[in-house]
Amino acid sequence: MGHYVGSLANRIELQNKYQQYVMVADLQALTDNIDNPQKVHDNVVQVGLDYLACGIDPNKTTFFIQSLIPQIAELTILYLNLVTVSRLKRNPTVKNEIQQKGYKEDLTAGFLMYPIHQVADITVVKANLVPVGDDQLPMIEQAHEIVRNFNRIYQTNALVEPQALISKTSRLVGTDGKAKMSKSMGNAIYLSDSADAVAKKVMSMYTDPLHVKVSDPGRVEGNAVFTYLDVFDPNKEEVQSLKDHYSKGGLGDVVLKRRLIDILNNFLEPIRIKRSQLAKDPAYVMDVLKSGSEVVRQVAEKTMSDVRHAVKLNY
Amino acid sequence: MGHYVGSLANRIELQNKYQQYVMVADLQALTDNIDNPQKVHDNVVQVGLDYLACGIDPNKTTFFIQSLIPQIAELTILYLNLVTVSRLKRNPTVKNEIQQKGYKEDLTAGFLMYPIHQVADITVVKANLVPVGDDQLPMIEQAHEIVRNFNRIYQTNALVEPQALISKTSRLVGTDGKAKMSKSMGNAIYLSDSADAVAKKVMSMYTDPLHVKVSDPGRVEGNAVFTYLDVFDPNKEEVQSLKDHYSKGGLGDVVLKRRLIDILNNFLEPIRIKRSQLAKDPAYVMDVLKSGSEVVRQVAEKTMSDVRHAVKLNY
Repeated sequence: MGHYVGSLANRIELQNKYQQYVMVADLQALTDNIDNPQKVHDNVVQVGLDYLACGIDPNKTTFFIQSLIPQIAELTILYLNLVTVSRLKRNPTVKNEIQQKGYKEDLTAGFLMYPIHQVADITVVKANLVPVGDDQLPMIEQAHEIVRNFNRIYQTNALVEPQALISKTSRLVGTDGKAKMSKSMGNAIYLSDSADAVAKKVMSMYTDPLHVKVSDPGRVEGNAVFTYLDVFDPNKEEVQSLKDHYSKGGLGDVVLKRRLIDILNNFLEPIRIKRSQLAKDPAYVMDVLKSGSEVVRQVAEKTMSDVRHAVKLNY
Repeated sequence: MGHYVGSLANRIELQNKYQQYVMVADLQALTDNIDNPQKVHDNVVQVGLDYLACGIDPNKTTFFIQSLIPQIAELTILYLNLVTVSRLKRNPTVKNEIQQKGYKEDLTAGFLMYPIHQVADITVVKANLVPVGDDQLPMIEQAHEIVRNFNRIYQTNALVEPQALISKTSRLVGTDGKAKMSKSMGNAIYLSDSADAVAKKVMSMYTDPLHVKVSDPGRVEGNAVFTYLDVFDPNKEEVQSLKDHYSKGGLGDVVLKRRLIDILNNFLEPIRIKRSQLAKDPAYVMDVLKSGSEVVRQVAEKTMSDVRHAVKLNY
């Protein structure tokens, strides 16, 4: 659901306005799943299922799998020359993730470099707009730097400088109220979760630890249940009056959580149905991803041809 | 000539014993010529000319150009995950070069990563043997680590662990007697140098700064002229008696240098003639490099197919 709020919702709208590409980042997933390639492999179909179940339409959107586009790797190698090691270490998103994952001496080159790899993902299709959460803005900034340096040094306009399109709700906190929802933190609700699983997760959600008795005044800010209601409850007025009531005291967590369970399950039910239908035909999902990758390989080869010409690697 | 002694001489012998690949590393050349791609482009033909003029035979040896093999980039991306940033910084060859080139905050990611890129160069053709100078042994060590890690983690034998084949004379000091001969240090003799140019460079060669008068005893050790005679003079006995004479005093630098000029020019003359003939047909040279690259792309695709299977990126 974090992915939905931060990206998919945006994507569903954008496919009606733009020529849209959506990439499944299997190689970047390997970066922190080095010794678990089966998990990455299996997740490719799962991610595809999420996209399709939410309403991203393969007739409007071109899907592709990162590892099927060798030109991304080729661009990455060229871009590595345009970025200093110290610049990579200053990247706020990377710094944050290094801290979160506790990398020290075991920080891999692959992890440190992944912003450069992402710039190749973006520029290989000459993307103009990249829908991102605000936590991803440093990545777009890195893209600007590389594109500008490349076009300046090689006196070309082979690369297109992408603009960030920031989604309204760019990140969803985890059910524990901490940081953003993520698989690795175990604080995520999945688009594939059953109604019961959603209920269970919401019931154990972080609220206000000082709100012990129903009559106690409760904190709204930082309360994950209210954060989720803000995003998913269509009735903004009612949410406001619930907040007022909760702040004064006299409103229990369970009432709020039951409301959120209903709202989330209403939202998830059609996605869940479509997802389980599609899940019966994983070959179809792979076919969507692979045929899109064929299209992108051709676009990517055109980009690489421009790039080779600029860097005089055209023999 | 440094390249000849460190590598080409070996290569000429090896092509009769093994299936040999020789790569022109244009992408690695870009690593420290970021803003001078024309120089890199032009040097590709020059390097090809050197190889062919020295007697590396395209009927026995498969030439290829690094940037024409996208699988090298793809392997590099996968290998980045198997090497830590601190491991890269400990690489003695890289450390040495960083110091030599005076990189500090401006150290690029491309430069730090280049040993990983080299491992991809080697493993993409599943090379068993890599002819190297002893200064390149840390690169082979890095290759061992990556290959072992990869094969262990992904339970495969897709990658072949290469062995170093150390050339007898692995490096030739520059004409200034310092470090190794290199273009960037301005202390190199080129296979394409005219007889006059060779004479001029030898005449200004570093000998023994304390050997002022002919009658002075001179130092043989560290004396570049003797180092070159050791490598190129076929008459080892005479070289030994010259060394004895020089050590005792009474033998002037000019006599030695004239001898070296003759020897080098005798050695270079057939190479020079062949080189200037070939230089009239750069299209032929490019054709050799490009048709070899076609062959290597097929070998490389077989390697990538094994690798994709192991890392479960085979969709």
